[in-house]
Amino acid sequence: MMHDFHYVNDELYCESVRVKDIAWRIGTPFYLYSHKTFVEHLEKLQRAFKSVKPLICFSMKANSNLAILRTLVKKGAGLDIVSGGELFRAKKVLCPPSRIVYAGVGKTDQEIEDAIRTGILLFNVESIPELSRIERIAGKLRKKVNVSLRVNPDVDPGTHEHIATGKAETKFGLDMDTVHLVFMRADQYPHLLICGIHVHIGSQIVRGEPFVKAFRKILLFLTHLEKEGHKVEFLNLGGGLGIIYSDERPQTADEFAKQILPLFKGKKYTFIFEPGRFIAGNSGVLVSRVLYIKETQAKNFAIIDGGMNDLIRPALYGSFHDIWPLKKKGLTRKSTYDVVGPICESGDFLAKNRALQELHPNDLVAFASAGAYGFSMSSNYNARPRAAEVLVRGSKFEVVRERETYLDLIRGERIPRWV
Amino acid sequence: MMHDFHYVNDELYCESVRVKDIAWRIGTPFYLYSHKTFVEHLEKLQRAFKSVKPLICFSMKANSNLAILRTLVKKGAGLDIVSGGELFRAKKVLCPPSRIVYAGVGKTDQEIEDAIRTGILLFNVESIPELSRIERIAGKLRKKVNVSLRVNPDVDPGTHEHIATGKAETKFGLDMDTVHLVFMRADQYPHLLICGIHVHIGSQIVRGEPFVKAFRKILLFLTHLEKEGHKVEFLNLGGGLGIIYSDERPQTADEFAKQILPLFKGKKYTFIFEPGRFIAGNSGVLVSRVLYIKETQAKNFAIIDGGMNDLIRPALYGSFHDIWPLKKKGLTRKSTYDVVGPICESGDFLAKNRALQELHPNDLVAFASAGAYGFSMSSNYNARPRAAEVLVRGSKFEVVRERETYLDLIRGERIPRWV
Repeated sequence: MMHDFHYVNDELYCESVRVKDIAWRIGTPFYLYSHKTFVEHLEKLQRAFKSVKPLICFSMKANSNLAILRTLVKKGAGLDIVSGGELFRAKKVLCPPSRIVYAGVGKTDQEIEDAIRTGILLFNVESIPELSRIERIAGKLRKKVNVSLRVNPDVDPGTHEHIATGKAETKFGLDMDTVHLVFMRADQYPHLLICGIHVHIGSQIVRGEPFVKAFRKILLFLTHLEKEGHKVEFLNLGGGLGIIYSDERPQTADEFAKQILPLFKGKKYTFIFEPGRFIAGNSGVLVSRVLYIKETQAKNFAIIDGGMNDLIRPALYGSFHDIWPLKKKGLTRKSTYDVVGPICESGDFLAKNRALQELHPNDLVAFASAGAYGFSMSSNYNARPRAAEVLVRGSKFEVVRERETYLDLIRGERIPRWV
Repeated sequence: MMHDFHYVNDELYCESVRVKDIAWRIGTPFYLYSHKTFVEHLEKLQRAFKSVKPLICFSMKANSNLAILRTLVKKGAGLDIVSGGELFRAKKVLCPPSRIVYAGVGKTDQEIEDAIRTGILLFNVESIPELSRIERIAGKLRKKVNVSLRVNPDVDPGTHEHIATGKAETKFGLDMDTVHLVFMRADQYPHLLICGIHVHIGSQIVRGEPFVKAFRKILLFLTHLEKEGHKVEFLNLGGGLGIIYSDERPQTADEFAKQILPLFKGKKYTFIFEPGRFIAGNSGVLVSRVLYIKETQAKNFAIIDGGMNDLIRPALYGSFHDIWPLKKKGLTRKSTYDVVGPICESGDFLAKNRALQELHPNDLVAFASAGAYGFSMSSNYNARPRAAEVLVRGSKFEVVRERETYLDLIRGERIPRWV
């Protein structure tokens, strides 16, 4: 079971809730999440890696809604954060600090200080200047801080260039020579315990090979470090597991574990994983309403009330999202549509040349696989209030983030008297 | 004078304010706008087209900050809106309804009703179903409503495909045969006064040719309509005037007017223009601070505290923004940098392979030409509070939108008891 969105009598359900009923209650567009799907994806990873008792830190940049985070934290997940704002969210959902890891190339002094005071498990460090900065701040606070060094293994993960992060020319991580040097000179950092290695090669990776290739490199490197007497306690293998958007055949959690675990047989590391999309991607959809069908000589357009401000992935990455009608009409013929939003630029499309059952104004559709990098990337472009977010559990649903209002759009703005 | 950002004693000023002083006061990143530059760009267009007394409707999707809108409205501008949220903003700045025009392919019933009740000047209509919908709602409200039909002239403007809107295969506008038919059957729409033609072929168009080509087509078409006895009162020539980001040599307002006005000599239309970028683009910059300099074997990275959530144009359109140091160091050598943000994806860059004066942590830089499609497209991705916006007039400056706080990030979110 990939997710808990399914049809009953040709109507789309999320778990036991008819999606149309939510649309009628709260209007469109909205993001809709399945509690069960979130939990099951987490548990799939927990089970697959059970033998090594991993710490699975959900990468909240994929979806940082508090209700989602709380759900995962209650099921034993930790959180992978990348900013002070994400640390704030982690604290709001009462994530134990010992399950928080902090990555990212641009940590500010204030963010580092907040994280140290919170007592997070460790920092994933991306550069030497960052290492020095954490040392300085830890010293000021008289704390000893765990640090994991992010190694850039120079592997091409075969994914969109915007989300490939493990090649030498990206901003992420340190080359192995530099990491080696840091371990040798660890006494230069008296307030840091350099105790981990982190590797993350990119996102939406559907084949096992790039992982195996990267991890073999890391393993050789670890062996070398350990021969020299350096101790590595945490091995953070990052995230990046691909999901099914269209016709991908990504590795399952089990297949992934079967490829990965033998590589590290006999090693006593605390393994950390940072899945985001794998847990959230297929756990959510974006529900939208058809406003107009516009037939031109060149194309048919289905103009909907969700736009690129709600879901920017198609415009930004050329991503594919499957489209599910909320009501299947058994025998109608199919038509080909560009499914576009109301925003005034041509980049505002959600699907191009898509064969769908014939659409009419007020028909409701769901964009699949929108649980990751959906709401978290949304904006107010074209002065559009951001969509509501709804969580379903069994037969219950609740708005977990209110739809924004026009007043929300102008919060914090003011007109000087001298204008 | 293209804008009012300039150096005095090697320090960057906006009008008479040293930009560094603002950075010290309010922190970084922030958007900074020059009141004078906004006004001068508006006045350039007003002067160039003075002979036809045009209505210049600022396209607020480029920059919808209330202080900016109020500035332009006070100087006689109208507003080009594309959503109910933008109508709300237009009303907030007391724009006379007779200067509001409403475009966009996805107007909802509620948005149409609000606009009719407000008494806006006219709707730019993009499809037949939309025409029927406005007719129905106008009928319900017992109002007679001005309508301008957007003609798609099928012209390639030679710009980025996401912002080219005048080709036959885009979602925008109606072909001429359809528009002709609507004029012939105008009595089918008793509550509409079909009294205008609208044409907008795209954005950031730097050459005059595509405009002239499109407008010649429109002129022939208008002549044809008028021969048949149809009356056209409003001729809306859209926006799209390109600006200088890098080495573009766009037409000036005067050059543009000299190309365009002769085409329409002797015509008595009320001319409408909808400039956005032309007025806002070079009137604003994004100010950011260098957090880290990271040197790798492949590249030098300047990691700054602004990211793709603040300014998405480079990631989304591959756009170029010039980079100005807040303090010029006369004699230092140049280095080549990728200037990147703190966001955890490789798409988070603001400039690639850019030769700049040597940068160090805490150096301040300004990204030029960020006044249009900058803040208006910004998001909270990676749980980053959105930047502050600051307006300068002469020697005064004021925050016209507060920097968001962590609390703003979670507004409207809640965790159900059953999670």
